[in-house]
Amino acid sequence: MQATQAALRLPRAVVPGCTRGPAWLSSSRSVVRRGRAALATTAEAVAAEPQPPKQQKQQQKKQQQQPRGQGKKGEAKVITPMSEDFSRWYLDVVRECQLADYGPVRGTMVIRPYGYALWEGVQSHLDKAFKETGHQNAYFPQLIPLSFLQKEADHVEGFAPELALVTQGGGKELEEPLVVRPTSETIVNHMFAQWVQSYRDLPLLINQWANVHRWEMRTRPFVRTLEFLWQEGHTAHATAEEAEEETIRMLKVYEDFAYNVAAMPVVSGRKSRIESFAGANCTYTIEAMMGDKRALQAGTSHNLGDNFAKAFNTRYLDEGGQLQYVHQSSWGVSTRMVGGIIMTHGDDAGLRLPPRLAPIQVVIVPIVKKDADSEAVMAAVKGLEAALKAAGVRVKLDASTDRTPGWKFNQYEMKGVPVRVEVGPRDVEQGTCVVARRDVAGKEGKQFGVPLEAEPFVGHVSALLDDIQAVLLRQAREFRDANIVDVCSYDELKEAVAAGKWARGPWAGSDEQEKQVKEDTSATLRCFPFDQPQHSGTCFMSGQPAAEVAIFARSY
Amino acid sequence: MQATQAALRLPRAVVPGCTRGPAWLSSSRSVVRRGRAALATTAEAVAAEPQPPKQQKQQQKKQQQQPRGQGKKGEAKVITPMSEDFSRWYLDVVRECQLADYGPVRGTMVIRPYGYALWEGVQSHLDKAFKETGHQNAYFPQLIPLSFLQKEADHVEGFAPELALVTQGGGKELEEPLVVRPTSETIVNHMFAQWVQSYRDLPLLINQWANVHRWEMRTRPFVRTLEFLWQEGHTAHATAEEAEEETIRMLKVYEDFAYNVAAMPVVSGRKSRIESFAGANCTYTIEAMMGDKRALQAGTSHNLGDNFAKAFNTRYLDEGGQLQYVHQSSWGVSTRMVGGIIMTHGDDAGLRLPPRLAPIQVVIVPIVKKDADSEAVMAAVKGLEAALKAAGVRVKLDASTDRTPGWKFNQYEMKGVPVRVEVGPRDVEQGTCVVARRDVAGKEGKQFGVPLEAEPFVGHVSALLDDIQAVLLRQAREFRDANIVDVCSYDELKEAVAAGKWARGPWAGSDEQEKQVKEDTSATLRCFPFDQPQHSGTCFMSGQPAAEVAIFARSY
Repeated sequence: MQATQAALRLPRAVVPGCTRGPAWLSSSRSVVRRGRAALATTAEAVAAEPQPPKQQKQQQKKQQQQPRGQGKKGEAKVITPMSEDFSRWYLDVVRECQLADYGPVRGTMVIRPYGYALWEGVQSHLDKAFKETGHQNAYFPQLIPLSFLQKEADHVEGFAPELALVTQGGGKELEEPLVVRPTSETIVNHMFAQWVQSYRDLPLLINQWANVHRWEMRTRPFVRTLEFLWQEGHTAHATAEEAEEETIRMLKVYEDFAYNVAAMPVVSGRKSRIESFAGANCTYTIEAMMGDKRALQAGTSHNLGDNFAKAFNTRYLDEGGQLQYVHQSSWGVSTRMVGGIIMTHGDDAGLRLPPRLAPIQVVIVPIVKKDADSEAVMAAVKGLEAALKAAGVRVKLDASTDRTPGWKFNQYEMKGVPVRVEVGPRDVEQGTCVVARRDVAGKEGKQFGVPLEAEPFVGHVSALLDDIQAVLLRQAREFRDANIVDVCSYDELKEAVAAGKWARGPWAGSDEQEKQVKEDTSATLRCFPFDQPQHSGTCFMSGQPAAEVAIFARSY
Repeated sequence: MQATQAALRLPRAVVPGCTRGPAWLSSSRSVVRRGRAALATTAEAVAAEPQPPKQQKQQQKKQQQQPRGQGKKGEAKVITPMSEDFSRWYLDVVRECQLADYGPVRGTMVIRPYGYALWEGVQSHLDKAFKETGHQNAYFPQLIPLSFLQKEADHVEGFAPELALVTQGGGKELEEPLVVRPTSETIVNHMFAQWVQSYRDLPLLINQWANVHRWEMRTRPFVRTLEFLWQEGHTAHATAEEAEEETIRMLKVYEDFAYNVAAMPVVSGRKSRIESFAGANCTYTIEAMMGDKRALQAGTSHNLGDNFAKAFNTRYLDEGGQLQYVHQSSWGVSTRMVGGIIMTHGDDAGLRLPPRLAPIQVVIVPIVKKDADSEAVMAAVKGLEAALKAAGVRVKLDASTDRTPGWKFNQYEMKGVPVRVEVGPRDVEQGTCVVARRDVAGKEGKQFGVPLEAEPFVGHVSALLDDIQAVLLRQAREFRDANIVDVCSYDELKEAVAAGKWARGPWAGSDEQEKQVKEDTSATLRCFPFDQPQHSGTCFMSGQPAAEVAIFARSY
């Protein structure tokens, strides 16, 4: 038995195909080992005492007789507290909640079902919003001739260091290397140039759901991976004004999603020139504050002007019969959003998911101590499950018998399920159940005596889900506002950043001064927020007149 | 003006990066030129007479006064009749209906919005069916170490000739080339080996929606492309029996989708050994008959046995504490299905889409000859649109004024919209409208006097959509059955195949004899159908006792 256990715990093969220091892999190896050890513990428990089914059942019963709400004795905490090490907490949550795992190639990740279900939630909300604003989905080839990228000078300069290249196909060397798309502006324009003939073909409003690759140095699951999933919108318009309107419209779609679905109180604004997309005239962004106060760029919308149109000759005949270049936008949100949700709402116990995105909104846990009680309790929980399903609530009834209720409570708490319903025999006798909310710990978060009748029960749970959604947003907003510091001098900025906060102050500095801030403090200019507070009108760096405040912060 | 027109019509740049004879590109170049000429005609018409809005409006009115149902005079037929050249018909339909376009790299395609909407229909139906059968979506990295493929001998032999390889990343040569996934069994097993510990972890039921690459010689939009979109299911089970059950279950999911959603009367069955998936013990297939009677493999489900489990050491501890290899299945349907739908139902006028998949199920065309009539007609058509939307029907109201009703009729007929509703001023006076079905040409397909009232109108249209769905399936089934020939000798097979038909007969031949049939007739063994007719029990080729009939046909 020991030999076979050892076989199961063989260290993960370190696969070549990495050219640089495997930052993520090496930092994660210990974590992986830890994860494997935990897994092995479970496996050993199973393996140690092979039991016939009867004995197993008895042992399960014993476990179920433990006090409600308590896990197995001696169960080790598997998640590092946030306060101790935020980065470690994040990796622990990603692993223990089975959101993602490491792929064999450095910097790649496998998105596991629970993590993918979160992404499906993001997709379904955004896809609906894109269609409501007149966009259609399409799909462009992933492999792009290298020469395409070279047509737009800024674009190739920005992306060249991060490209993956296909140089062999079907057993032969290719004449020209093909780029594995890092983004699709070039190939989209190659096609738009063929599709757009007259002003009648405009606006052209396209979106694509796809995978993209960027050969990143430092990676982290969801936040920055060699391959990620995203949507990329690409539009063409007759005028510069319409392109700008569209660019802002789609940023507002992202902002609305962030606030009202993901409960992320993002700050919307304009990027500085040096932080803008390679090839854009202007980039707009939604910036989110994570639990460690670092900024996360959670979505961007670019006004591309006619830069790509000129590079690819994307022109239309206007109503006067004159050839004109189109004006364009592009905009994207990626699986990084999942990382943002984790790091905005999580706590020491694990995930806290906003109800509108939670793959499981409500978990129902029956608590049966004696076989005699089983029938009545199971009838009750099945009734509750059916009532919630009928009301469109994403509900999971966990009636498995191989885990104690306490283990289940811990598990679903860690997985961030917003609402838990507990039903025991005494509850059934009284015609009630217990409803616990994830966002309030312990007894304070429990409501006793909630009726088992479908209508009041569903009403109670629905209202609770709405309240949790609102509370998560409010808490995140309060946290954000408490950690933005208005600064009047460079020293104040340094102090704020050193304290881990966001620094906001009037800015009219040069590109060089912006780079200086980064060099000195590792904070970058996150955006010029649309929502401008009152300010002195004098740049805290250059002393020049400043029309706007900018926000500086350390970021992911 | 001529100069700028010429600029618009610049021939498509032929991009290098192709190693072999560009079969698709070369065969398509004339088509592309043809398509471009057609586009240029429209553009020229726009460009020739730049008009102020007022004059334009007058001209539009003039066009609208043309007889109902007739297009612009002198408008060239853009789709080659099926009977003349099926292959050309197909490419014409794909281009003119804007389903797909050629990508810059040989053999790649751009899926345009109308084609992508069809794929979204396929996705939504299948995704629901997968979830209802207990599967969860996940995402595995696209780049796979080459060494992974080499672990399963048959698998690498089957896929090696078709691989695209990434050899450079981030500006450096990689130590080991990475394969751009042609399918994911290897990387899935790399992960399953880590996730599966005990029998409690089984069955593991995963699906992934993804793009895959296979460096194909001969390509054709949707049917066979260098890159395509698909879903790939990957499951692991405790026993061989469960893996076989799953393999069949998912083939049945495909069969059900084909019959009841795509209206494709597929033949389900087992592949021969030499036609099975590289690495599978056994492959099951749904085979569809296209309008030219060629067979299309529209979906496959593989019983992988423990082949990959052994290659990747994917094992679990059974209830007795013994380590066992898992047994696996994998199954996939791709964008090829869209090609199958086109080629199953299309006719000389273009697409005919089964209502359950049609992106637009009903198009409403108002017919306004005088401005005075406009208000009443527009009120009526908006009412109909709202009524259909409320009933969940995918409806498009085309009230654009730059095209005649006749042009619109032709356009939506070509695009395969199942039902067209026409409303003119006289109709409104009488409180009725005209409803035309796409599957019955001319006056016979028109129902006059359909009430404008929401309830009877929606009832009529809904029933009609159901009927069209049933008729498309029935017609396809009759066509299929009329073109399967039972054969008792090799000569009869040759005769049937030469006549373009499917040949069905008792088969117990060797691999060599199966290859001989292919060499002699270019027909391949499509499957041993589950639905076995009575037969002689003697192989028509070898004269040996035969337990089953097999179907041979030329295929895509």
